[in-house]
Amino acid sequence: MKKEAQGPFRPFEKTAILGVGLLGGSLALALRKKQLSKRISGYGRTEGNLKKALRAGMIDEYHMDPRKAVKGADLVVLATPVGMFRGLASEIKDAVEEGSIQTDVGSVKGALVSELESILPNFIGSHPISGGERPGVDNAVDGLFEGVRCIVTVTKAADKNALERMELMWRALGGNVELMDPDKHDMIYALMSHLPHVLAYSLVNTVGSMDGKSIKYAGQGFKDTTRIALSSPEVWRDICLLNGKHVIASIKAFRQELDKIECAIAGNNPAALEAEFGRSRALREKIDRKD
Amino acid sequence: MKKEAQGPFRPFEKTAILGVGLLGGSLALALRKKQLSKRISGYGRTEGNLKKALRAGMIDEYHMDPRKAVKGADLVVLATPVGMFRGLASEIKDAVEEGSIQTDVGSVKGALVSELESILPNFIGSHPISGGERPGVDNAVDGLFEGVRCIVTVTKAADKNALERMELMWRALGGNVELMDPDKHDMIYALMSHLPHVLAYSLVNTVGSMDGKSIKYAGQGFKDTTRIALSSPEVWRDICLLNGKHVIASIKAFRQELDKIECAIAGNNPAALEAEFGRSRALREKIDRKD
Repeated sequence: MKKEAQGPFRPFEKTAILGVGLLGGSLALALRKKQLSKRISGYGRTEGNLKKALRAGMIDEYHMDPRKAVKGADLVVLATPVGMFRGLASEIKDAVEEGSIQTDVGSVKGALVSELESILPNFIGSHPISGGERPGVDNAVDGLFEGVRCIVTVTKAADKNALERMELMWRALGGNVELMDPDKHDMIYALMSHLPHVLAYSLVNTVGSMDGKSIKYAGQGFKDTTRIALSSPEVWRDICLLNGKHVIASIKAFRQELDKIECAIAGNNPAALEAEFGRSRALREKIDRKD
Repeated sequence: MKKEAQGPFRPFEKTAILGVGLLGGSLALALRKKQLSKRISGYGRTEGNLKKALRAGMIDEYHMDPRKAVKGADLVVLATPVGMFRGLASEIKDAVEEGSIQTDVGSVKGALVSELESILPNFIGSHPISGGERPGVDNAVDGLFEGVRCIVTVTKAADKNALERMELMWRALGGNVELMDPDKHDMIYALMSHLPHVLAYSLVNTVGSMDGKSIKYAGQGFKDTTRIALSSPEVWRDICLLNGKHVIASIKAFRQELDKIECAIAGNNPAALEAEFGRSRALREKIDRKD
């Protein structure tokens, strides 16, 4: 077990947040509240959104050009939908300050981390697993990272000091930091997060295809099961495509489990059906026991 | 639109609750609190459970023989797992009092209502859509039916007075009563409740099959999506088998929606994928707008 990075956190002089939405905005608020960054600049595609973040005191300045946003920043955070990371990294690579750290808050790591490492001088991948299906700066809150798991990726290319800085920063923001290989991250989160999103979206679409008016009969079970179908289609489009290999493997594994249950129903096999449900409940109970 | 039944509710002399679990126990508590039944008797398979209900003041008496429990009762409620309803109805049919009403709280209606109507003298189907995946009398609460939708089934054979009594009772307990054809009920709830349970159980089993240790990485999305996998395997086994036709039709429709999303991922088609997710979100938002 690797020893945890220790010590007080020396604040950043300036953080550039590229994409001031739910995660970027919440990170800005949290960095300010914990005094981890003296200044914060924002970049985004929609000026109205950046003005809102400025008025809300999340950021000190904003720019419609990401190269201007990263000027003077010793920390740069990619917080747009993950599909834009590569393009954005290429755009800023010659503008980032020497000695600065670049990180992200994206839900996909794997090959994307290698690519970003090859484009940017000092990239460390981060993924705070913070709930919140309501996208946008309006839903940003300073406590979004308190008590949530935060994966920081470890690779051969990663700079040890930068890695330790990121570990300390997320911990100072309240995150439970776990260091992880990028591909292992993608395999786990395909199963634990990306697949559930695909299923929630598919379930609501099933209602839409069969009888959209039935939606009014949604009870608490349906609401909970499909809450994440409220998530941003753009964000989840990018995540599913960038982690396509693992997401498809998870869908295939899911189909096999669904098959078993369908067969037990079609074959009118109460023992098999109860065994499938019981196996599921036993594993699901392990989550709540730890809560 | 049928006119709503009106008027104050004349209490039952005695209610027999057959199956004192989450729903039966909550119904006993609610009937008492609202003074809708002077006495309440309980029947169950497990004496320890009935003693607990007696000590908790839910019931005034209990019996291990359902025929004794229904003696003197002008209301009989089937509240065991639905798979036991037919056997239980046959057992009590010669013991129920003349002029009494028999109802249930089961999640399946359809053909089951016809069967129960043919066995019992005066059966009216009920289905209060009350959340609560934690089964058992320990989780019973008196407010379980407050503000929840409650389906009361309408059939040609149904006695008009008994139907009105049931409508009034559920409304007095705080339910939003809706009269519905039994088969329409089963089609809607296969889609809106039974399918989500099947998917939640299947999703947790997918984690179990791929890498059970990953369960510790469950975030809020996974927890919400699979909360109903904590439901009783026995209860949901019965529901899925008794509503097999509609549940399987819903699973088949779901597979088609999952196929569309999988194809968009496999074909690296961002526009198609975003369209599927966007269509889903738009329909899902209709629920919360009404809340």
